[in-house]
Amino acid sequence: MLTITSKENAQIKNAVKLKKSAKYRKATQCFVAEGVRVCADAAYSGADILSLFSTQAAADKNPDSFALLSEKAEKTYMVPPELFALLSDTQTPQGFLCVIKALDKSADFDTIKNGGKFLALDNVQDPNNLGTILRSAEAFGVDGAVMSSDCCDVYNPKVVRGSMGAVFRLPILSVNSLSDWLSARPQLNTYAAVVEPSAVPVTKISFHTPCAVVIGNEGNGIRPETAAVCRHRITIPMNGKAESLNASVAAAVLMWEMVK
Amino acid sequence: MLTITSKENAQIKNAVKLKKSAKYRKATQCFVAEGVRVCADAAYSGADILSLFSTQAAADKNPDSFALLSEKAEKTYMVPPELFALLSDTQTPQGFLCVIKALDKSADFDTIKNGGKFLALDNVQDPNNLGTILRSAEAFGVDGAVMSSDCCDVYNPKVVRGSMGAVFRLPILSVNSLSDWLSARPQLNTYAAVVEPSAVPVTKISFHTPCAVVIGNEGNGIRPETAAVCRHRITIPMNGKAESLNASVAAAVLMWEMVK
Repeated sequence: MLTITSKENAQIKNAVKLKKSAKYRKATQCFVAEGVRVCADAAYSGADILSLFSTQAAADKNPDSFALLSEKAEKTYMVPPELFALLSDTQTPQGFLCVIKALDKSADFDTIKNGGKFLALDNVQDPNNLGTILRSAEAFGVDGAVMSSDCCDVYNPKVVRGSMGAVFRLPILSVNSLSDWLSARPQLNTYAAVVEPSAVPVTKISFHTPCAVVIGNEGNGIRPETAAVCRHRITIPMNGKAESLNASVAAAVLMWEMVK
Repeated sequence: MLTITSKENAQIKNAVKLKKSAKYRKATQCFVAEGVRVCADAAYSGADILSLFSTQAAADKNPDSFALLSEKAEKTYMVPPELFALLSDTQTPQGFLCVIKALDKSADFDTIKNGGKFLALDNVQDPNNLGTILRSAEAFGVDGAVMSSDCCDVYNPKVVRGSMGAVFRLPILSVNSLSDWLSARPQLNTYAAVVEPSAVPVTKISFHTPCAVVIGNEGNGIRPETAAVCRHRITIPMNGKAESLNASVAAAVLMWEMVK
């Protein structure tokens, strides 16, 4: 166990950069996870924890989690609260942060042939939405999520935290072109979520497996080339003056209908 | 139309305080709404707009909305961008903000007798959750939302914005004691949302009208005294390691099942 007291320390600088920069995360193939629960999720899921940063107060308050994490982590650094605040992405830091090796997001799903149910995300941008969507996908028992590579980085700290650990457990695949990926899997019944009166209300749909619900960008929806390769266009019937649902709510309702 | 250039101006100070303080909003019975779309929603819903603050750039960019709002507002104030930033609750302000008279949240629902479908919120605290929940309630055609008075203030700027205008259109009732209110309405079939394996999965429920889904606090759930007066205990079946859903997602799925 090492103690760091300077914000100029290389490990601190590295963790801050991992928090802030998707480019740096990509280049180094590392990311950070913050919070007692999310760090423990990482440890239990078998992720490679390169380092643990903890405050003394957090270690004292959560002795079991601290013991688990400091055993799993290659290095453990104790830092004072004012230094931890630099690492943290939250307003009231819990005092645990791990630097973790990026998980393999290139392994294709082997569950398609078994009639799996999937989520496909086309340029979803908001990290809070993405975290919540992945959390819902796991909770509903979706078999995996395929994401276009221009979606918000799955290792954005807000996504990691908002997913409540789903990023560690849900099979996630990142692909350069979602339309190519879908085209190459014609056995997959694809249901594109759109906000159009001409689309079929999800209440009138029976999902046939293997299947995927396709969710698009918050403002612009699904890309035309992605929509073009989807078999069905579905929508959530809406009432009154409301023009749309929050993206994470819409995704949840459609996944719910797919899996229940 | 008046131009304000000092941050010491009384109108500016008033609007900033309305943004920040729930207590001040309650004392003055006013609140602020920010953004082109939300301000227009306020105008269309017939809310009393006491003042409009706008930047010149926003007025130039949205001439129709500016004309509408400055006509509806009793006073219109033009402010430079650096002053508008003080009023704003967003990182990239759109340049429109209205001070609005609080709406009447004490009128009881007259739709219970017609077999209405309602949402009851017991100490929901997070403004982003509350805004999203009200937005979903409106979109799904829920007849009204009853909220315990210790819920997050419905006029919190994050709630107003996140609701996408639903706070102006959805019948909302604030009550001191949700358990008293529910007890006094025995004709209402109440479905308390809980995270307990012993509760009935929502997939096995037929909602009987008039009915209400009851959603509790993000961390602590529904208060025992509220749960005690609910007729049914329902839950969303979950899979795997996920322990819970985001509160606004759980509320959306249950409302969806109630109304669809």
